[in-house]
Amino acid sequence: MRTTTGWQADGPGTLRRTSLERRDLRPDDVAVRVDHCGVCSTDLHALNGYDQQANAPLVPGHEFTGVVTETGPEVTAFSVGDRVAVGNIVDSCGSCAMCTAGQENFCRSFPTLTYGGTDRQDGSTTLGAYSREYVVRAAFAHPLPSGLDPAEAAPLLCAGVTVWEPLRAHGVGPGSRVAVAGLGGLGHLAVKLAVALGATATVVSRTRDKREDAHRLGAHDFLDATDPRDTAAARDSFDLLIDTVPAPHDLAPHLKLVAMDGTLSLLGHLGPLTVEVMDLLVGRKKLSSAGSGGRPATAAMLRFCSDHGIAADVEVLPSAQVATALDRLARNDVRYRFVLDLSDLD
Amino acid sequence: MRTTTGWQADGPGTLRRTSLERRDLRPDDVAVRVDHCGVCSTDLHALNGYDQQANAPLVPGHEFTGVVTETGPEVTAFSVGDRVAVGNIVDSCGSCAMCTAGQENFCRSFPTLTYGGTDRQDGSTTLGAYSREYVVRAAFAHPLPSGLDPAEAAPLLCAGVTVWEPLRAHGVGPGSRVAVAGLGGLGHLAVKLAVALGATATVVSRTRDKREDAHRLGAHDFLDATDPRDTAAARDSFDLLIDTVPAPHDLAPHLKLVAMDGTLSLLGHLGPLTVEVMDLLVGRKKLSSAGSGGRPATAAMLRFCSDHGIAADVEVLPSAQVATALDRLARNDVRYRFVLDLSDLD
Repeated sequence: MRTTTGWQADGPGTLRRTSLERRDLRPDDVAVRVDHCGVCSTDLHALNGYDQQANAPLVPGHEFTGVVTETGPEVTAFSVGDRVAVGNIVDSCGSCAMCTAGQENFCRSFPTLTYGGTDRQDGSTTLGAYSREYVVRAAFAHPLPSGLDPAEAAPLLCAGVTVWEPLRAHGVGPGSRVAVAGLGGLGHLAVKLAVALGATATVVSRTRDKREDAHRLGAHDFLDATDPRDTAAARDSFDLLIDTVPAPHDLAPHLKLVAMDGTLSLLGHLGPLTVEVMDLLVGRKKLSSAGSGGRPATAAMLRFCSDHGIAADVEVLPSAQVATALDRLARNDVRYRFVLDLSDLD
Repeated sequence: MRTTTGWQADGPGTLRRTSLERRDLRPDDVAVRVDHCGVCSTDLHALNGYDQQANAPLVPGHEFTGVVTETGPEVTAFSVGDRVAVGNIVDSCGSCAMCTAGQENFCRSFPTLTYGGTDRQDGSTTLGAYSREYVVRAAFAHPLPSGLDPAEAAPLLCAGVTVWEPLRAHGVGPGSRVAVAGLGGLGHLAVKLAVALGATATVVSRTRDKREDAHRLGAHDFLDATDPRDTAAARDSFDLLIDTVPAPHDLAPHLKLVAMDGTLSLLGHLGPLTVEVMDLLVGRKKLSSAGSGGRPATAAMLRFCSDHGIAADVEVLPSAQVATALDRLARNDVRYRFVLDLSDLD
């Protein structure tokens, strides 16, 4: 086994710096020196729900960039020194209909998650990238395009591809009318990507002081969700509404904004939600969701971001300040993604 | 006013034969001698919920065919003696975005329903077609194509267009894989229309003895929803699943059957339903609904049915047996639509 250093859960919501083991490289593995890892809401949920007695070890972190430090003998796609990026899945069965369609994120026997997953060969629990090294199958690492800053690119690997997938699945392009509800880690990337795809983008938010940010990010319009005149005027007007609100909420106000035959895509809250079928019926509207992406979509998204100069708005903190990052994320005090610099673990 | 005879609610679930008033013809009205009217589940719900003290008068019936007996002076599209068909809406604002797009069923100021609606000119409550005469704006009557039997065509005006709309909205055609859950008034027409559109159709049912009927209606396959092997084998395999189950139900088993990027269209139960967002996320599936149709879609559906020899499988009863029809419908004892013959009201 190899040894590295990382931040491991020590109880609900708390992390401590500790020594971690990584597997010896398999023939198709690469070892990655993790330089930057984004702080995702999923990390917060996993930590808050963590029970040291009941759960396997938890090291969060599933959107990271770094540099290849070693390659297994069968690896041809990467060399030592290459910049790479890894998202929230690190393996899949490779043979089911979803995997063969390039949607490894929907693998029928469940993809191996970057942390909290079960390794398909030795059954161990995967440990995430709040650590200085990660060992991963080369097939699940992506070359990081040269145009992208590694800190700003890290959040693309989870937040970025999660918004990219519904934008592409719904054919967003010139002439599309896209709304983005909730301007956070997911939302701000949804705005940038929608605009770069040629759509008109509108931010829907209850936080009026995000109006300026919305425009700075490229949004054409800002809809104050607390203003009945704003919402009435925008009724039935968006082909796609990307809903990144990270808590249970009433879907009716968002469905009202969706145009005939349009779609409300739920990305923020993944638990059960109640929908009034009449709110779908009138205007033949659709409710959908998406989460992360397959390897081809991730590669396409990275190319698109490199071509269009798109990356996350980040606040980079030394990993020793991870508790601050999580605390501020919980209070929604981030514009728009914390990224940990793991070099302080050396 | 004009006088006719019809079946009016006399209390929850009961109807009595009575004399009814119809308005004198406006310039753009036609009077229709109602020959056949389908018995829709909506009628049953309206009657069961009827409270004579609290509610306006109720005469059900919103899918009917008949013959024009008189025309207003501005009517040019119809002449006395023409066969016509009328569905569940008889007027709309005509000027909103939905109406101008030919989706009068989604009229922003609400379409005038064929019964239980509010007339846009005199504010009276509309009375349905369980009666010998109906007076309607000519614009909301459709010529009944010569190839269609008037009894078998009546259910096309509500059940038919309700399943036609999602089939068309989702681009069903050759190569499409369509499943129909629930084989009743809506479901049996969904099968016939899907097959005629070139799709492969599968009936999903918990009633095994409908297997033979499914094949007789043209379905290529029958999936026994109570058999875990059947449902496991069909996972992720339908581009569109038309769900006509007329009661609240767990959506998860149906969503499992929907293919990647496919749609579950809810037509049977229009109240609130709980959806697990993860069931949408995995496979990027969509939840949708539809109900009735606009005038262009209704006309297109009638043409298509005439061209392809499609109509409802009906059991025609004299209108005096309406109570029997409603009672048997409540017990799901109909293959597949009751149609009242109103000639006994003369």
